[in-house]
Amino acid sequence: MYLAERGKGLPDRAIGVFDSGVGGLTVLKEIQRLLPGEELLYLGDTARVPYGTKSPATVRRYAMEAATFLTRRRVKMLVVACNTASSVALLELENCFQIPVIGVIEPGARRAVSVTRTGCIGVIGTEGTIKSGAYTLAIKQLAPDADVVGVPCPLFVPLVEEGWLDHPVTRLTAEEYLRPLRKHGIDTLVLGCTHYPLLKDVLQEVLGPEVVLIDSAEETAFAVATRLQGRSQLRPIRPAVPSQFFVTDVPERFQRVGGEFLGHLLTGVEQVSID
Amino acid sequence: MYLAERGKGLPDRAIGVFDSGVGGLTVLKEIQRLLPGEELLYLGDTARVPYGTKSPATVRRYAMEAATFLTRRRVKMLVVACNTASSVALLELENCFQIPVIGVIEPGARRAVSVTRTGCIGVIGTEGTIKSGAYTLAIKQLAPDADVVGVPCPLFVPLVEEGWLDHPVTRLTAEEYLRPLRKHGIDTLVLGCTHYPLLKDVLQEVLGPEVVLIDSAEETAFAVATRLQGRSQLRPIRPAVPSQFFVTDVPERFQRVGGEFLGHLLTGVEQVSID
Repeated sequence: MYLAERGKGLPDRAIGVFDSGVGGLTVLKEIQRLLPGEELLYLGDTARVPYGTKSPATVRRYAMEAATFLTRRRVKMLVVACNTASSVALLELENCFQIPVIGVIEPGARRAVSVTRTGCIGVIGTEGTIKSGAYTLAIKQLAPDADVVGVPCPLFVPLVEEGWLDHPVTRLTAEEYLRPLRKHGIDTLVLGCTHYPLLKDVLQEVLGPEVVLIDSAEETAFAVATRLQGRSQLRPIRPAVPSQFFVTDVPERFQRVGGEFLGHLLTGVEQVSID
Repeated sequence: MYLAERGKGLPDRAIGVFDSGVGGLTVLKEIQRLLPGEELLYLGDTARVPYGTKSPATVRRYAMEAATFLTRRRVKMLVVACNTASSVALLELENCFQIPVIGVIEPGARRAVSVTRTGCIGVIGTEGTIKSGAYTLAIKQLAPDADVVGVPCPLFVPLVEEGWLDHPVTRLTAEEYLRPLRKHGIDTLVLGCTHYPLLKDVLQEVLGPEVVLIDSAEETAFAVATRLQGRSQLRPIRPAVPSQFFVTDVPERFQRVGGEFLGHLLTGVEQVSID
């Protein structure tokens, strides 16, 4: 069965994207922008969100179930649009599924290394992402002399979900979380969680204009395009194909918060069971 | 099988307590304080925490699985130490299991009605608890003329889990959330989430000393004691029996955060599968 899904020479198949919830929509949005002809299947595991506070073993199990659901729909590529799952489950997914698997860590790390001038790079993310050390490893593989500082920022996701994007509480929280990074003198900050691009304005203000913010979503979209092109699996450009959305809890909340992420109404979201 | 678990005349059996995570430990602590001779089995569904942002249907499914796990261990009573699960799943649990099921809503509502002078009662909780209207219903059943205002406070749980119990961010967040309740002139506030008792000091300061805070945990412990006494199922008082703790994700985080909830080291936590 997996053989039939390999997808070689099958540019018409969809790209499967998954995340624990709505956060991965920032990645979906960038893929849509870069590759408007591609069809996307998006799965948000909203019944078990978040992944960021859970153990690597549990996140690996959830990621495997999400990937299995998408590969059964014969996607040509898997995009792990979740930093926590990318940090702890990518290798296992690559080993289990015979289609390309793209995570968000390596693209973000690559970009950070290419823009830093001082080599002093900050990474913010969930507890799970920072604890895994995945960004530090990916950055050091590209630039062994880089000085990488990771800081977990567990309140940023709930703040985004609350819609407090430009709020005194968010600013105060950012000042607290980013203090050690400012002290360390970073010149580049990786936004190592798909929710964080929505906080770009506040983060930039707190860090000052000289620090470059790296949005993994944009970089991941480039990685997707490059890999598909390399395999001659890009669809010919044509009018945008509507994406399909699946969630594991009822769709209402996903539609509401997800609509804010995408900047347009989100409809036709289907509830499915993956466990 | 359920018949054998009814527990009538079986005071020696344990009391089963469950929550989505560590929050229910505030209820466990109060039961231990009031009934030091009782043995307690605690289950935290840490692989799927939180429940407060999830749909009633999903929370009901999780609550059924948690209750099934505990009843298989032949507990004499089920305590739903989670406001969200109590709000949406209590009736179904009572219908499915033939042992007494105690939730946290009714005890909290009863206490609020007994202490209010003006009849103007505020309730704070997760999105799921407030949306369910369970507290309003329970209070109105006891005092039909009461004026009940519910406000969801989704950031309080992550703030407690971050350990920011006395932090400027928490104070600012509380001021924002509680503003409508202050304007409304409540004289009583139900802490409708098991995490919130840890924020008592900040909440009292923001609301002023004249507003009475109702901690569902204490009231629930009284309800447990009363019901067991009424069924002659109280254990004779004797040296404290150690509680048993089960979680659905790895124990580390539960032990760390839970230890802060209980004020002492939490060890011997066992990981189990309930789904």
